Amino acid sequence: MSKTAWSEKPSDLNRLKPGFKLKDVDPGSTPGINATKRSGTALRLKQEGTLRELQGKLFADSTVGGKGSLLLVLQGMDTSGKGGIVTHSLAGMSASGVMVHGFKAPSPEEKKHGFLWRVRKRLPEPGMVGVFDRSHYEDVLAARVRHLADPKTLDRRYHQINTFEQQAADNGTKIIKVMLLMSEEEQRRRLVARLRRPSKLWKYNPSDVDDRELWRQHQEAYQIALERTSTHHAPWYVVPADHKWYSRLAVQQIILETLQELNLDWPRPDYDLADERMRVAGT
Amino acid sequence: MSKTAWSEKPSDLNRLKPGFKLKDVDPGSTPGINATKRSGTALRLKQEGTLRELQGKLFADSTVGGKGSLLLVLQGMDTSGKGGIVTHSLAGMSASGVMVHGFKAPSPEEKKHGFLWRVRKRLPEPGMVGVFDRSHYEDVLAARVRHLADPKTLDRRYHQINTFEQQAADNGTKIIKVMLLMSEEEQRRRLVARLRRPSKLWKYNPSDVDDRELWRQHQEAYQIALERTSTHHAPWYVVPADHKWYSRLAVQQIILETLQELNLDWPRPDYDLADERMRVAGT
Repeated sequence: MSKTAWSEKPSDLNRLKPGFKLKDVDPGSTPGINATKRSGTALRLKQEGTLRELQGKLFADSTVGGKGSLLLVLQGMDTSGKGGIVTHSLAGMSASGVMVHGFKAPSPEEKKHGFLWRVRKRLPEPGMVGVFDRSHYEDVLAARVRHLADPKTLDRRYHQINTFEQQAADNGTKIIKVMLLMSEEEQRRRLVARLRRPSKLWKYNPSDVDDRELWRQHQEAYQIALERTSTHHAPWYVVPADHKWYSRLAVQQIILETLQELNLDWPRPDYDLADERMRVAGT
Repeated sequence: MSKTAWSEKPSDLNRLKPGFKLKDVDPGSTPGINATKRSGTALRLKQEGTLRELQGKLFADSTVGGKGSLLLVLQGMDTSGKGGIVTHSLAGMSASGVMVHGFKAPSPEEKKHGFLWRVRKRLPEPGMVGVFDRSHYEDVLAARVRHLADPKTLDRRYHQINTFEQQAADNGTKIIKVMLLMSEEEQRRRLVARLRRPSKLWKYNPSDVDDRELWRQHQEAYQIALERTSTHHAPWYVVPADHKWYSRLAVQQIILETLQELNLDWPRPDYDLADERMRVAGT
């Protein structure tokens, strides 16, 4: 099903290429698929079972010593849909195998340590799917835009991030980094909507507009961060996010393809199958 | 919808009553609802959105200082369907707000502490839904059946559990304790099936049959534990589980009703709404 719906794999299409420029990507586009909101959403719901099976295999493999895990790093401006990705792109997976962590501004305790200290503690265990809703990238994004770190420190951090992610990959963690790319105009629409719906008012923070007023600076910070930290072992995917049905489907598909590439199978029993069948039959 | 489908609320129906006897409950029954596997499953899927909204309110409330959280404790013999409850009864909720912990035999480090030490660390934070897949109840169930603790210690543990749960409830945690009640014959069928499906073989452990051979002792241990620890602040629900569609739907419904009783609403904004609407419009 998924093989035919996509004209090109979103894991290739949205993956960062050399010479990439953020401003060349249209946040309102839906690359690689000829679908509508309705058919795209239907496809996503249909694929939930496949996602559950792949997650099951990842988890099962860890019970026989497999070290594999998955880490999804989500970045994007406010209202770009990070929360919706967690709810909808991961739907179908069992909550037993998923650990989501939202990174806020570091606490006084966390500030005493290097910026990766608190992140390392949240890396997924073998068999698990970890999700970072914002991440260590804020330390080169917000930190750059708001001048929370000097240029030398920022420069060092890109290297530290690459080393950190390389280590995690070497330990068996497949890393998918997603930037949800939304247009400035679409953010305005979403903020207006957020301020009109009682169920959304609590999500609004006046500081969202402060960030918005630094839109260009944020885009620059993203461009630099993406260029410097998209690696073979931890690639960035820039996913157009003005259409939520598309970003949710594309991220689900990238996760599906990444898990499929692990080529995991159900573990073989370490007990004597014939014996145990007899034992059970006799009880 | 749910109000009409149930002839009696499963939160009343399956809740432990004084004089309760485990052997009086039919594991193959589907009390309180006139439904089939198909219609029961359809109802469960239909209610996922309601569950998501209620979880959203619980989480939102915590962002303005609310202390409420939910804890679902799952107990039952092997193959009684605890994992399926996590996957299906909680489906619809955002993984951001759910923390599942499976309790295994305690580690050497954990054994150095009281039996509730490791459990306390897993209590849900405000706004979160915590799930225990097995729990501190193993310390009065397996511990009793396998004589891992002397009678005096066991006796003390029921009190300790009640005090512990009372404290958690006082701190804002709504506690739902579910025993999935399956018949001995149904377990045999499920173990046979588990040993026939490549996707299930890894879940089988030869010790499952050892436990099965102590069926009567387990039922006795459950009877005592349920009697002694079903309290107003942390009630037990005994849910017939030979029909998975029923147990998944009934647990979803108990969660729904429990969350509805919290009567939570979306938080009111702590900023000036008119001002912020103007600000956003001006960007």
